[in-house]
Amino acid sequence: MRLGTVTVVGVGLIGGSIGLALRGRGLAARVVGFGRDERRLERAHERGAIDEAETDPRRAFQEAEVVIICTPVSRIPTDVASAARLAPVSALVTDAGSTKADIVQAAESDSAAAALFVGAHPIAGGERSGVEFARGDLFENQACVLTPTQTTDAQQLRRAEDLWRAIGCRLLHMSPDQHDDVLARVSHLPHAVAAALASAVGSDVTALAGGGYRDSTRIAASDPAMWTAIFLQNRARMLDALTRFEDRVSSFRELLERGDEEGLSRWWNDARTARLAFERAETSAAPRLA
Amino acid sequence: MRLGTVTVVGVGLIGGSIGLALRGRGLAARVVGFGRDERRLERAHERGAIDEAETDPRRAFQEAEVVIICTPVSRIPTDVASAARLAPVSALVTDAGSTKADIVQAAESDSAAAALFVGAHPIAGGERSGVEFARGDLFENQACVLTPTQTTDAQQLRRAEDLWRAIGCRLLHMSPDQHDDVLARVSHLPHAVAAALASAVGSDVTALAGGGYRDSTRIAASDPAMWTAIFLQNRARMLDALTRFEDRVSSFRELLERGDEEGLSRWWNDARTARLAFERAETSAAPRLA
Repeated sequence: MRLGTVTVVGVGLIGGSIGLALRGRGLAARVVGFGRDERRLERAHERGAIDEAETDPRRAFQEAEVVIICTPVSRIPTDVASAARLAPVSALVTDAGSTKADIVQAAESDSAAAALFVGAHPIAGGERSGVEFARGDLFENQACVLTPTQTTDAQQLRRAEDLWRAIGCRLLHMSPDQHDDVLARVSHLPHAVAAALASAVGSDVTALAGGGYRDSTRIAASDPAMWTAIFLQNRARMLDALTRFEDRVSSFRELLERGDEEGLSRWWNDARTARLAFERAETSAAPRLA
Repeated sequence: MRLGTVTVVGVGLIGGSIGLALRGRGLAARVVGFGRDERRLERAHERGAIDEAETDPRRAFQEAEVVIICTPVSRIPTDVASAARLAPVSALVTDAGSTKADIVQAAESDSAAAALFVGAHPIAGGERSGVEFARGDLFENQACVLTPTQTTDAQQLRRAEDLWRAIGCRLLHMSPDQHDDVLARVSHLPHAVAAALASAVGSDVTALAGGGYRDSTRIAASDPAMWTAIFLQNRARMLDALTRFEDRVSSFRELLERGDEEGLSRWWNDARTARLAFERAETSAAPRLA
């Protein structure tokens, strides 16, 4: 695959890593970074993540063969609409947002965007934001969920598959709703829980923290604006996932209050079984994703 | 420091690692592993963690210069009493339990034990139990809390300090109550939260798990019997820590239900501030512990 101009909108950790992957693998003639913050674009350029920085949307999109939108999820619908209006009618527009239902629905309610857009979520990242932490191999062997619907153009879908696979991802398809259900549980909930835990523990006692605290709260260092936007955009499903979690915490409290040793042991074993199933799947040689 | 016979009671991850550290550093003439399960002792012997295995308490303790008790916290009081009855009157008895108030209180209510015992908690370990995972460097530069009281013999305390320091630990002193308060928040709570999270997420969606889920639930794979015993022995403080946590979760739910973007961002920032303070302290060159 050899693309012409690829425009990356938002050059933080994800956008910067996409730029590094495209440039490192020689996948594009030119990577344009588009954003509002010139200093941030300049850092992306110094980092080698983009060939050119652009703050004018018309110039950023006019020659784009592919547009990849890597802004916070609350901004993605607007950015998709702009790209669809300003990019060539032959362009592919895709995104890297951690939620999909609202974004895909917004794109499909705009006929220009609907023709060009394929929703995507490469599952990679970290608690550090900013292009300083970008890596060209961030997506290597990571899952990327594509969320085509009946509205999605088949040719655009194939182009999106080729793009994300070329960057290093393993692909799978889900509906936008299914994606958001699963991610609420497996990603958004753990982030909220890690943050609640970091606050509850506080900072006065962490001199005695061991590996348990260290790993359990790592993602509480993530970007506030990014996560606030994700929680709000996936609100209903997030509240469902939170209810599941609160039920488990309540069970624990009841068992502990009445000193039920056998019940606590069973409660712990349910958790342990789930975790060990994950570990087995992760270390198995067989591909985990259909 | 060169000790004669050291008897390690319970040769799992912690007891096995102590044996490996003592033998690897040539700190003892002989390390005796004492336990009820012969196969487990045999594995510890094969692993090089002990010189001799012993299932008879009289023979295990009679020549001990030092006894280190590494059984689950619910068993430690009984094991301290046995060691105090059967070991020489000049012996040092110490432990590696993750709770201290009940254990120290039990030891001090037994005059033979009170004269010999110094409570200790080396903060090291992992979600894997068993001597198979033991490592001689497990305690290297890890904190070890000693919990002397007014009853503790000053000479025994110095011997305990020398022992744990020789194994590699950085030492600090706390009262048993203070230790249990701090550990409820910084260790016991994160374990319960990780387990509640692993159960709530379940095992049907983890094919899409990223690093957040992986790290947040790691300790949910820990040993059920060990953690049930810790929660029960530190019940009141654990319930207090859990209340702090539940309050943070409730705040999150309320903010999310009413779509309060600014409030969610503030909520997240509180958590992030606590986590970043931990990271700064951890990476600073200055010693973290008094």
